Amino acid sequence: MAVNLSAPRAGDLRPVPGVTIGVAEAGIRKANRKDLTVFLLEPGASVGGVFTRNRFCAAPVQVCREHLQQGDIRAFVVNTGNANAGTGEEGLVRARATCIALARKLEISPQQVLPFSTGVIMEPLPLDRIEAGLPAALADAKPDHWLRAAEGIMTTDTVAKAFSATARVGGAEITVTGISKGAGMIRPNMATMLGFLATDACVAQSLMQQLAFELAESSFNRVTVDGDTSTNDSFIVVATNKAQHAQVTRLDSDDGRALLAAMRQVAQQLAQAIVRDGEGATKFIAVRVEGGRDAQECRQVAYAIAHSPLVKTAFFASDPNLGRILAAVGYAGIDDLDQTRIDLWLDDVHVARSGGRNPAYREEDGQRVMKQQEITIRVGLGRGEAADTVWTCDFSHEYVSINADYRS
Amino acid sequence: MAVNLSAPRAGDLRPVPGVTIGVAEAGIRKANRKDLTVFLLEPGASVGGVFTRNRFCAAPVQVCREHLQQGDIRAFVVNTGNANAGTGEEGLVRARATCIALARKLEISPQQVLPFSTGVIMEPLPLDRIEAGLPAALADAKPDHWLRAAEGIMTTDTVAKAFSATARVGGAEITVTGISKGAGMIRPNMATMLGFLATDACVAQSLMQQLAFELAESSFNRVTVDGDTSTNDSFIVVATNKAQHAQVTRLDSDDGRALLAAMRQVAQQLAQAIVRDGEGATKFIAVRVEGGRDAQECRQVAYAIAHSPLVKTAFFASDPNLGRILAAVGYAGIDDLDQTRIDLWLDDVHVARSGGRNPAYREEDGQRVMKQQEITIRVGLGRGEAADTVWTCDFSHEYVSINADYRS
Repeated sequence: MAVNLSAPRAGDLRPVPGVTIGVAEAGIRKANRKDLTVFLLEPGASVGGVFTRNRFCAAPVQVCREHLQQGDIRAFVVNTGNANAGTGEEGLVRARATCIALARKLEISPQQVLPFSTGVIMEPLPLDRIEAGLPAALADAKPDHWLRAAEGIMTTDTVAKAFSATARVGGAEITVTGISKGAGMIRPNMATMLGFLATDACVAQSLMQQLAFELAESSFNRVTVDGDTSTNDSFIVVATNKAQHAQVTRLDSDDGRALLAAMRQVAQQLAQAIVRDGEGATKFIAVRVEGGRDAQECRQVAYAIAHSPLVKTAFFASDPNLGRILAAVGYAGIDDLDQTRIDLWLDDVHVARSGGRNPAYREEDGQRVMKQQEITIRVGLGRGEAADTVWTCDFSHEYVSINADYRS
Repeated sequence: MAVNLSAPRAGDLRPVPGVTIGVAEAGIRKANRKDLTVFLLEPGASVGGVFTRNRFCAAPVQVCREHLQQGDIRAFVVNTGNANAGTGEEGLVRARATCIALARKLEISPQQVLPFSTGVIMEPLPLDRIEAGLPAALADAKPDHWLRAAEGIMTTDTVAKAFSATARVGGAEITVTGISKGAGMIRPNMATMLGFLATDACVAQSLMQQLAFELAESSFNRVTVDGDTSTNDSFIVVATNKAQHAQVTRLDSDDGRALLAAMRQVAQQLAQAIVRDGEGATKFIAVRVEGGRDAQECRQVAYAIAHSPLVKTAFFASDPNLGRILAAVGYAGIDDLDQTRIDLWLDDVHVARSGGRNPAYREEDGQRVMKQQEITIRVGLGRGEAADTVWTCDFSHEYVSINADYRS
């Protein structure tokens, strides 16, 4: 039961010229499930990507990194049901074999294919089923299949995640459309489980890594469900270069900023959708930390709050047991933090002042905010001018149920 | 329902000459509950202590640190029901006032009293009730009240925690007895919520800080329930110096090692008891990481595993979804970790080899171990000779229930 997140309608999603998408039921782990998705890019697209910093990164992540360095990417192949992680050398062989199989059908080189897998860890990827499913996925390929793709990459997600935006760049109207998946094992450290974002604007290949990095930093790298950084996080950004009057040659130009703003809007919607659909989530919580010496220490404090099981269960219970937030601020690892300068707000309610309970704070005010579905925790550190925000959800019985039963 | 932990019997606990203990029902938060405990030390005792590294440390922790520096400690006063944390300047005033109240009755200086509080954060300490309860606590004081004290300091604990040991030091038999409390907000970073350990051996005051530190490092600083470092962690070690033939002048002497071994045994039992009684715990899990470059990186990996909600819920479900452990190893923060050198065992079952599934591993073997109440996760990093172990528990529905309802 996602928090204020409903399934997108196909009509709300704008196709991106230069991208077609096909989805099939390949029976990878369970029957009668969309579990195999291909993205086909027309020649000339620019592609960038950022990936998990988990040192135990999955085989497809390693192959993606290699192939992205070659450039000239023409296709993605995405399977659910199996993460192809913790699979050693054999896993790498199978990830490469997936690329070879799709490349053969498209008459391109295997290096022009990016592979993505998500699902159970430490099981061998069922290569035969993926190969057998490819013809159906290719036959299904159409420009307006973004919603089908969003459905095709779901695992424990309860709602498909897809958003579109438009912007004026260089006098032309450009489109941005993206999809994402993820609900648990979510504390992206570079990117989310899977996120794909495309625009028809013209962006040189040389700018794509920076573009992907900047977008991830303000979206997927600011959300957490359970603090578990996945082995498979991948976030891919495509510019199909089809909107010939929308040329972006620098990201810090007016056109670059317009494109970045539109893409960031969709990336943040996709990232926040993952939190709204976080496993067992009943509340969407923004944690904003202000008054830090730099943004990094603000994030450090925000993540300590966002990962605290005690804070998350208190929000689940709508119990304003807000000392738990102060405790998390205290153990976040800022060694010279002065507790007498800490302030805490829950939305507009000033809870703690100068490290102690605000004399004007009334429990019923805290209670009122705690009952909402959307809450902002705001902490003032009183050390400087920097600020940062992360988004998270609460921690419920349902989270335990989902993760105790995931494989059964 | 604690894991393999039953309540101690009063007869199993040995009094420590030089220590008397009294307990009272002061109605601090709830009526008819032992919630106020005093420890009285005869003159000449040596006392050391280590405290939380949480920067939002509670008022009593700050006062303890000050008073310990003065030395010549004669009494402790411990309340449950209220942590006196997140209480600002007024909290410090009240912690000091508690010491003054007890000192007046004992005709000692307030600096000779150490105050301890545990319970709800950010509520004012009810000084009047503590003062009103002191006469009853003092009238109750007896040498054989260690079990009553273990009961008197419980909060969400379901079982009282107390252990004794004896050792031969310098030809004399000495006694070690200790108590602890804690079940949630447990990831001690210097010490646990509350732990008190006493011996009648003779140890110079100048050795006490080192003794307390070494004991904490191998016991309370190796356990975690939920990763939340408390604001109030305090671990106090007392040598009453009553066993005049058991003189320890250096910790690295034979007598010093004998004393340390006996005290470490009790400290580890107390620390492990906190995990066994961890909120909602159904399993006791040792996480041992070997083959690291140094002990610090082994601990870092062990804590990443021990804090992962995905790992902990899998253990709750007895589901050998063991790729989650590999994922936690990968995100533990060792930047140059080589995943192809990682091994994983569950007790005697070799699950992963060289970063992939061990070909000889059978799911039913993993399943067999997962069903046990006591499990050792062993990870080989393949980088060096260092090793370290932390102890934790699983993550159940009951944890969410307890922490969603704690204050109600």
